[in-house]
Amino acid sequence: MKILIVGASGTIGQAVEANLKAHHEIISANYANGDVKVDLGDPESIRSMFKAVGQVDAVISTAGVAAFSGLDDLTDLDFQTALNNKLMGQINLLRIGKSSINKGGSITLTSGVLSREPMHGSSVISMANGALESFVKAAALEIDSVRFNVVAPVFVKETMAMMGMDTGSGLSANDTAKAYIAAVTGNMHGQTLDAPNYL
Amino acid sequence: MKILIVGASGTIGQAVEANLKAHHEIISANYANGDVKVDLGDPESIRSMFKAVGQVDAVISTAGVAAFSGLDDLTDLDFQTALNNKLMGQINLLRIGKSSINKGGSITLTSGVLSREPMHGSSVISMANGALESFVKAAALEIDSVRFNVVAPVFVKETMAMMGMDTGSGLSANDTAKAYIAAVTGNMHGQTLDAPNYL
Repeated sequence: MKILIVGASGTIGQAVEANLKAHHEIISANYANGDVKVDLGDPESIRSMFKAVGQVDAVISTAGVAAFSGLDDLTDLDFQTALNNKLMGQINLLRIGKSSINKGGSITLTSGVLSREPMHGSSVISMANGALESFVKAAALEIDSVRFNVVAPVFVKETMAMMGMDTGSGLSANDTAKAYIAAVTGNMHGQTLDAPNYL
Repeated sequence: MKILIVGASGTIGQAVEANLKAHHEIISANYANGDVKVDLGDPESIRSMFKAVGQVDAVISTAGVAAFSGLDDLTDLDFQTALNNKLMGQINLLRIGKSSINKGGSITLTSGVLSREPMHGSSVISMANGALESFVKAAALEIDSVRFNVVAPVFVKETMAMMGMDTGSGLSANDTAKAYIAAVTGNMHGQTLDAPNYL
């Protein structure tokens, strides 16, 4: 398969690429580098990316920026950035990209467990994740030719270690990648894949 | 209690007001009329409303605009309107309004069953509803002095009749109002109240 990974330079993106590249042609897309550059906050940039890349069999997004901060510390800009980038960036990847997917292919986005299991400081991220999961479930009802799914990672052990957190409740990036592989190679459509269920 | 109803002129808002006004002081807020006017898409307008109204015991929002349309017919503006109005309008009502709620009071927003039970044409509405439900669940973890909940109505029979739909699967506005009464008078916090569970 020819697979476009958006956000390929991130911790999860790198692990997904490492798991797929032996058997598939990978095209990496990032904001600042990669085979092709893309700014998810700009629909024109997404259109340019698909024009440059052409038809693919799968798109995987492991991208999306959102603030982790207490409710009273969050600014209007924190909400706008999450909505423009993590939410609408990924939704536009699906809206714009679905015509560039070969029949039977798939688009896999990234939400996170914080939509359903929030914690202090997660309200903006929970908002964006919940929106993505409900959107993908609804969008999948209307389209049969391309499968849409969203992977909900838990905290990634490598990120937790970098932040000085106890990594006990996390999942390694390599283990998290397995949910993305399942979404690309499986038959699910309109599903939220909780990463710990795909080890 | 002194209760501010935002979106009081809507079908659900009118039923909520009719159920509460015998025992409580109601202040109605709408875009175009009511005791006070408010444009949910404009945070300054929300601030002005709370300045005019002063402290209250409860805020109920039955407001929010979003497009019902097939995925391929939805415009960028349809997404922006839902995000600015139904989603951020209600989130800003909570962010800005929580300091105007008396201790032990509550804020009740409106999502809808389409977040979890989508249908053809609901993707924007499902997105906004899912975002609201996850946001409220997360925000409630951080605040104890005010209760936050969201009511998820199903289709309202009166609206269905007006649109020429079979009303069999709907709930009357008066029955839908019961979930809002439960949210205001109960002890739940951070919950999504599915309207059919509160008859």
